[in-house]
Order: sequence, then C-alpha cells, then structure tokens
Amino acid sequence: MSEKDFIVTPWEVRGEVDYDKLIREFGTQPLDETILRRVEKHTGTLHLLFRRKVFFSHRDFDWILDKYEAGERFALYTGRGPSGHTHLGHLVPWILTQHLQEKFGAELYFQMTDDEKFLHDPQLTLDKSVGFTYENALDVIACGFEKGKTFIFSDIHYAKTLYKMAVQVAKHITFSTVRAVFGFTESTNIGMIFFPSIQAVPCFLPSILKGKNIPVLIPAAIDQDSYWRGVAREVAPKLGFYKPAQLHSKFLPGLGKGGKMSASEPDTAIFTVDPPEEAAKKIMNAYTGGRATVEEQRKLGGQPDICPVYYYYHMLFEAEDTKLREIYVSCKSGNLLCGECKANLTRKVTSFLVEHQKKREKARDHLQDYILRD
Amino acid sequence: MSEKDFIVTPWEVRGEVDYDKLIREFGTQPLDETILRRVEKHTGTLHLLFRRKVFFSHRDFDWILDKYEAGERFALYTGRGPSGHTHLGHLVPWILTQHLQEKFGAELYFQMTDDEKFLHDPQLTLDKSVGFTYENALDVIACGFEKGKTFIFSDIHYAKTLYKMAVQVAKHITFSTVRAVFGFTESTNIGMIFFPSIQAVPCFLPSILKGKNIPVLIPAAIDQDSYWRGVAREVAPKLGFYKPAQLHSKFLPGLGKGGKMSASEPDTAIFTVDPPEEAAKKIMNAYTGGRATVEEQRKLGGQPDICPVYYYYHMLFEAEDTKLREIYVSCKSGNLLCGECKANLTRKVTSFLVEHQKKREKARDHLQDYILRD
Repeated sequence: MSEKDFIVTPWEVRGEVDYDKLIREFGTQPLDETILRRVEKHTGTLHLLFRRKVFFSHRDFDWILDKYEAGERFALYTGRGPSGHTHLGHLVPWILTQHLQEKFGAELYFQMTDDEKFLHDPQLTLDKSVGFTYENALDVIACGFEKGKTFIFSDIHYAKTLYKMAVQVAKHITFSTVRAVFGFTESTNIGMIFFPSIQAVPCFLPSILKGKNIPVLIPAAIDQDSYWRGVAREVAPKLGFYKPAQLHSKFLPGLGKGGKMSASEPDTAIFTVDPPEEAAKKIMNAYTGGRATVEEQRKLGGQPDICPVYYYYHMLFEAEDTKLREIYVSCKSGNLLCGECKANLTRKVTSFLVEHQKKREKARDHLQDYILRD
Repeated sequence: MSEKDFIVTPWEVRGEVDYDKLIREFGTQPLDETILRRVEKHTGTLHLLFRRKVFFSHRDFDWILDKYEAGERFALYTGRGPSGHTHLGHLVPWILTQHLQEKFGAELYFQMTDDEKFLHDPQLTLDKSVGFTYENALDVIACGFEKGKTFIFSDIHYAKTLYKMAVQVAKHITFSTVRAVFGFTESTNIGMIFFPSIQAVPCFLPSILKGKNIPVLIPAAIDQDSYWRGVAREVAPKLGFYKPAQLHSKFLPGLGKGGKMSASEPDTAIFTVDPPEEAAKKIMNAYTGGRATVEEQRKLGGQPDICPVYYYYHMLFEAEDTKLREIYVSCKSGNLLCGECKANLTRKVTSFLVEHQKKREKARDHLQDYILRD
C-alpha cells in the first residue's frame, strides 16, 4: 500500500478500492449504457446488480452477446475457494450468474478450488477444504441454479479431468509469468505455482466436454481477474480455444469500517449458516455512516455512501429502485436514523436467511445431481 | 561441463560418469560386500546386477532389510518416462526390480510419467506420451512381473489419486527448493515446477492404499536420485510417512562412443520393438574397444573396459561369470576380435528380442490386469 491506497489480488483485498482505477489498471471495459441496453433486450428488465453497477466492468462481454445473437450458446463459469462457510459477499456474483443462466439458458460450470485454499492456508487441512466444497455447494444450489445445467466440481475430486487439461495449460506458462501476474516468490510453494493452470481449465472445459468450441463467460469479483488476464486468455489461442469473457463485480463491504466482507473477520460477515438472531446481532453492531449523536445526525444527515448497511440494501436487499432511493434520501436528510435502518435491514436479512437455509437443507437431498464427476 | 567432465540430472546424462564421485556428491552409500551378503541370505544367489556392481549405490537399503527381517513387507516403486519405445537401457532397473519382487514377495508400483515427458518436450503431444505409457507397459509386463502384485499407472489417467496426494507434498516444497535441486529457472514451465510433487507420490502410495505405513524401495538409475533426495525424503516425515529407500544403477552405454543408451540417438539404441535384423545391424555398426587393424588388435589386445559391446555382456547378456571372464580375457589378449564378439552378442540379443517380443504381444491380452485406476 505504499504506492497506492488499495490492493486487489486473488488473496488479498485491502483499502478503499477505486474501481475506475482498476478498470484502467487491469485493462478492462466499463459496463456502459450501450452494452447494458443490449443485455436488457435479452433479459427483459435489467438485473439490479447491473442497474446499480455492482457489476461494473467486463472483458469481451460484447463478443459474448454477438455470439449469442448469432445463435451460439455460451457457458457460464464461476467458482468459490472453499475455506469456510459461504457469506453474503460470495452470493453477489452467484446471484447474477443464476440470473444469466435463467435468461440466456446457459450451462454453468462451478469450480470449487479446494486445492488452492488448502495450498494457500498453512492451517487448513485438505479434508476441511474438500468438506467445505460440499457445504458451499449447498449454498450454490440454494441460489436457484437449474438442475441438469449446473455442474459443480471439486478440484480435488475432479482432478482426473482437470489435471490432464491443466498440464496442457501449464506447458505454456513459465515461472516468470506467474511471478509477474501473481507476485509469486522463491518461497511460494510449488502447488500454488501450478494452481493457475488448474483455475484456467474450466474456461475450456465446456468445449472439451462438448467436443466443439463454446464461448465462456465468467461472472466473478474483480480480484480473480489476474487468472483470466494473465493465464487463461494468454493460453486460449495456443490451445485452439476462445478466450474467456468476464463480468467483474465489486466487493460487498464487511459490517465493520472499510474492507470487503471476509470470512477471516467473522464478526463483520454474515454467513449463510448464521442463526438469524446472530446475523441480527452482527447488523445491530455494524459500523454505519451515521453521526456521533442523534442530534448531530438529525442536523447533518447520515452518509449512505460510506455506510455498509446502506450497501446491503443497494447490492442485495432492496430490489425496488424507488424504495432504495427513499432510504438514501431519508438517510441523507437525517430523517432515517441508523437504529431504524438497521432494524429494517435485519428483518430483510433474517427473512432471507430463513428462506435460504430452508433451500440449503433441501439441497442436501439432490446435491449429487449437481456434482460433476470424472 | 565446465567444472567437471560429466553431468547427471533427470533430464540429461553427459560425459563419462564417475560413479564413485556421484556417491560422494549425492551423499549415498556404496552397495558394499556387507550389505550384498545380507541380500544373498534372502535371495539365494546374488543377482548379476548386484554381483557386477551395475547397482552400485543405495540409500537406506539396510533399513529396508532390517524391516524385512523384522517381518515388515516393503513395496517396490520404479517408473518410466514414456517419451518413446523402451530400449535395453530401460530394462536394467526393471530386471532387478522383478528379481526383488520375486525374492521378497514385494508389490510393485510402476509410475509412467507421461505428464512430465509431455511437459518437458516441446514437440511431444499428450496423446503421444500417454500412448507410450501403454506401449511401455507391455515391456514392463514382459519382464515377468507378477499379476496381482504389480500396479502400473499413467500419471495422466491416475491423476485423481495422484493430484490429491501431490498437493499435500507440494505444500511443503518451495520454488527455491526445486530451483536448487533441479536447476529450474524463470523460464521453466509451471507444470515442470509442480511435477516433482507428482513423482514423490508413489513413495507414499502403498501406505495410503493400505492404510498403514509401508517401507518403499526404489530401484532406479541414479539420474532420478534428485527426486528422492530433494523432495520425497524431505517431505516424508512431515506427512507422517517413511522416507523412501533407493537402489541406484549405472547407465547402459549406447552403441556409439560414450554416453548412456538414449532414445534420442536411435542408431545406437536397441529398442525392444526393433526387428531382430535391425538390432543386429546396430550391433554390427557399434563402436568398440577394438584397435584400428586386426594386426594391431592381435598384438595389443582389445579394450573391454571402454567397449559398449562388452558392457552388454556384462550388464545383460552373459549371466555366467566364468564365461564373462573368458570374454574379457580373450578380448584383452587379442584372441577375440570385434567381429566375432559382435556376432556372438547379436545371437544373444536377437534371441532375447524374439522372446521378449512374444511376451510383449501376449501382454496385450492382460494389460488391464496390471493397470492401476482411480
């Protein structure tokens, strides 16, 4: 953080992220009105995650739409590093992915990087990360993905297919490339060094499984971009595949001051398995954009733009734009105080959790229908 | 070759190898009379590859014998990089391995490193290296290994089991370690960098498959030593396994002047699939320790110590020590000329090939009984 005031890598997101700067730095395209209007043509209404620029950037999404409009189906690919339970921040890209699956009839390949989480975290056992693969898969299924079109796989359990393809990727990637892209050093373990080739494979997996080239679109938080920018897109033409396209989302903030929601700070993260009363407690303890005293807040108004509670409405819990606007305005005006706002959010979050947890439990019965095996 | 006049690495063997120097350099133990006498106690007669010091060095072989004498069975592990057809040089460690299997009732785990061969050779396709896995497996089976106790596996096809274990190895190995052990550089591909963890796995595979710690003995040419010295033996205690023990063999020379038999020089290598008349031609064209003219040779005698033809008798084709001695003596005395000596060897080699090729074809019918699958 010496040169700039934020860091975004696959393993670390710190500071106040300047998303416009990321677009320039990573060389991506903003999701502008032109492309959003094209999407809307196919989806009917524009999903709130598009409308509100939670998904804010892309690479080749216009090409995906070209292909789609020319009658060529694309596949979706996203994933999760199963180092613990799913929290609300993880759901953001999954929700848009489910929406895209529904609207575009796309198959989804969902990668659980239990190998990478194990390799990266000195404390994590392999049994534990593989275990979380299947726990997290319940959350994926609970998001409403379509059976028969959704293929979830553990890197460890699907290794036979993945490794065969990964060595073909790896042959084209040198240490100096991954050093430059991921900042690997002399003391990085050789599993982490190899892993980018495993993470690249699902970009090509639909093509391999179907025996013909299939465009792949990856909706994911922007911290994963280096995998596609530095590895998958470089190697794709050498292996005769399309380059994967991407949609990049912002991070859901944690309930504390600054930073994305992170499982490593459980007090400021709402997990999908949290008992509703525990989630309620976390929200009531959340940092807000409120003032020091009620009097001051009535006078100056709140600061929704720096308030995680507001962002929960914005990104997940208030689907209606007019109502969201009302919250914003009444916060700014000093009408809506943090206590009331938190209580409202709590109702929404707890009712979401109750519902999600029901679906999550039901998912146990048909988990196997979603798991891709060698 | 600036500092010394030979090089021995997993990918390159050059110059006149000084095996005593290798023992000091790699920190192994010579296979001395004491340990050979212990072996003989169990095997009856001492195998010619032991007697003639073709296997010349070891690591912890005494510990393997301790375990065996205490009633604990060990497993054997050896392998092959399937970049082409098998040649006679490859058979040397397999022949001793088969002997050890028979005498000690040991299971054999035979690794085909089709991933590594593909990753290392820019020209080789994966289909080709995997194809050679099964071609080479026929040669392994033709060596007489016992069905039900011999488990041959392709790294690519057995990746599900191997990768899961390899990440556990990889977590303990940094880039700086593989750089030091294997001389990897910035431009080494990340598949090669990861591969040492795949090659380490069979050291622990018997223990994993049986659910208890099993000593493993690796008979292999000494060029493979860095894998065990630098990786497997380092990691074993961290994963709760025994360190693998090793038996190291010398290289069968090629039929040209200097250097080991190498598939990259097909004119000076006898492949197991060579038509006998082609093998005969290669032998007749071989470099020898003979003199420029018959007269000179009658006067000065031949030089069996630098003669590849002599080494074929020594390492593979003359089982009786007295007869071998006769060849040596009558060559040195100028009695035995190269033409006759080559003709004798040709008879032995072609009759070996005819026999081996029969067994090799028969092996096609029960290949699957030897293949280990996930």
